[in-house]
Amino acid sequence: MMERVAILGTGLLGTSVGLALRAAGFKGSIVGWNRSRSQAETALSMGAIDSIGHDAIETAKASQVVLLAIPIFATLDLMEQLAPILGPDHLLTDVGSTKGQITEAAGRLFNTPGRAAFLPGHPMAGKERGGAEMADANLFHGAVWLFSDNPAWKRSPQSAALASSWREWVVRMGARTNDLGPQRHDELVAWVSHLPQFTATALSALLENEVGEAPELRDVGGRALREMTRLGASPWSMWRDIAHTNTDAIAAALEALEQRLAHIRENLRTPELRDEFEKANRFRRE
Amino acid sequence: MMERVAILGTGLLGTSVGLALRAAGFKGSIVGWNRSRSQAETALSMGAIDSIGHDAIETAKASQVVLLAIPIFATLDLMEQLAPILGPDHLLTDVGSTKGQITEAAGRLFNTPGRAAFLPGHPMAGKERGGAEMADANLFHGAVWLFSDNPAWKRSPQSAALASSWREWVVRMGARTNDLGPQRHDELVAWVSHLPQFTATALSALLENEVGEAPELRDVGGRALREMTRLGASPWSMWRDIAHTNTDAIAAALEALEQRLAHIRENLRTPELRDEFEKANRFRRE
Repeated sequence: MMERVAILGTGLLGTSVGLALRAAGFKGSIVGWNRSRSQAETALSMGAIDSIGHDAIETAKASQVVLLAIPIFATLDLMEQLAPILGPDHLLTDVGSTKGQITEAAGRLFNTPGRAAFLPGHPMAGKERGGAEMADANLFHGAVWLFSDNPAWKRSPQSAALASSWREWVVRMGARTNDLGPQRHDELVAWVSHLPQFTATALSALLENEVGEAPELRDVGGRALREMTRLGASPWSMWRDIAHTNTDAIAAALEALEQRLAHIRENLRTPELRDEFEKANRFRRE
Repeated sequence: MMERVAILGTGLLGTSVGLALRAAGFKGSIVGWNRSRSQAETALSMGAIDSIGHDAIETAKASQVVLLAIPIFATLDLMEQLAPILGPDHLLTDVGSTKGQITEAAGRLFNTPGRAAFLPGHPMAGKERGGAEMADANLFHGAVWLFSDNPAWKRSPQSAALASSWREWVVRMGARTNDLGPQRHDELVAWVSHLPQFTATALSALLENEVGEAPELRDVGGRALREMTRLGASPWSMWRDIAHTNTDAIAAALEALEQRLAHIRENLRTPELRDEFEKANRFRRE
């Protein structure tokens, strides 16, 4: 069914999808495009794509399934550009970390019988450093791949079949799929993904102030510190769009954590501290 | 020089020290004692100790080097009990996570020519779950082992030689040593060890409230969430003593993080967010 795939954006995620499709046995063509050509060349040399497209629009037109693997605002821009050009024999899907605005645009610009289908997606996988050179065919093994599909959307039979086909390839790449409405999605990832990221950023930035000038003191922390600050290496360029498109839910999660830390701070010598540890232990129960 | 070692407390750290000493070629005797005998039997079956002592005081008396690998308040109790019993041919050392009170007791009760020496120590290694069964001969490989020794202390030549010998074995176990005064030690570990722990506890407890009842939602978070909450499994029984003996430094670190999170929360849509990410990136520079 799905024979021609375009990957627009051959960074960490896009290149990993190309590698994972090949590892899962996909025999069709994979054309890659990237704003900076060197990343597309890296993806090509790794075998994640068969060829490099010279233009995002033309590359999309020539394929059946178009994966947008670029930051959120760039995804929204390309959606506007592609909507009038692609037709009912195309499926677009994405990997954006927030789904509110993308799902709104998907309903407005796509998913009518005369237009391409758009299936909003979000693989819960990544690394703290991006780039095609970090790509990994196993990145999605055991990960959850969320979709914010809308059963009310009216798709052409061809594009609906491509959407089913894409879901099957996601499973073959090793992921488990789960469907969440866009609002529930954005609230949930604010807790389980965005809050951990901003916590690691805050902790890393604070420690850079406190002990950053003394590498021998940074090293004292050991594995616990390395893990709690690993995400501190994440690039602002990606998280800016997430912060802009999920502001309220992230702010609510951050404020809740501030209050929780204050509660612990005020109870370092009281039995309340035990209750907090026991609640934390429950979250980590096997 | 060092031929008879007693390990008082055969939990994760004590048992790991026994295994690491053997792996590093220590040929002398290692006697283990533990308040709950089953942990000592586990350590014995793993080869971390040669025999089980039936009484902490007698076990200490019969050895040259006594490692206290028990929680901080238990360490302070045993120091009081052992001080009048051990003599200038003994060295005591410990693995406690705070050094203020232990170093004060070490100066008051030990480290005079007629008494045993006490070398305050703190290996920066551990796991989120304790117990002899979690012990690992490689736990100290590449870790920093801090000491809060005091050059003004007057030791007998025998006990001073044992202190030097212990430091050499620490290096043979794979650790790098570093000396910090007790106040500087406690301030530093508040930032690089205690703050990450309490942050993980707060984050885990908060997420237990928010998504704890829905395991399928917990799983959505992936590796980032697992790492940021791994320390949430740490036991209150150990951290209670740390919170009690380093309260002010931990409270200051927690308050600083609360302010940092609030700053990020208030700047989710401003260029200040980039500055925070860049500062965090610098902390994680290679």
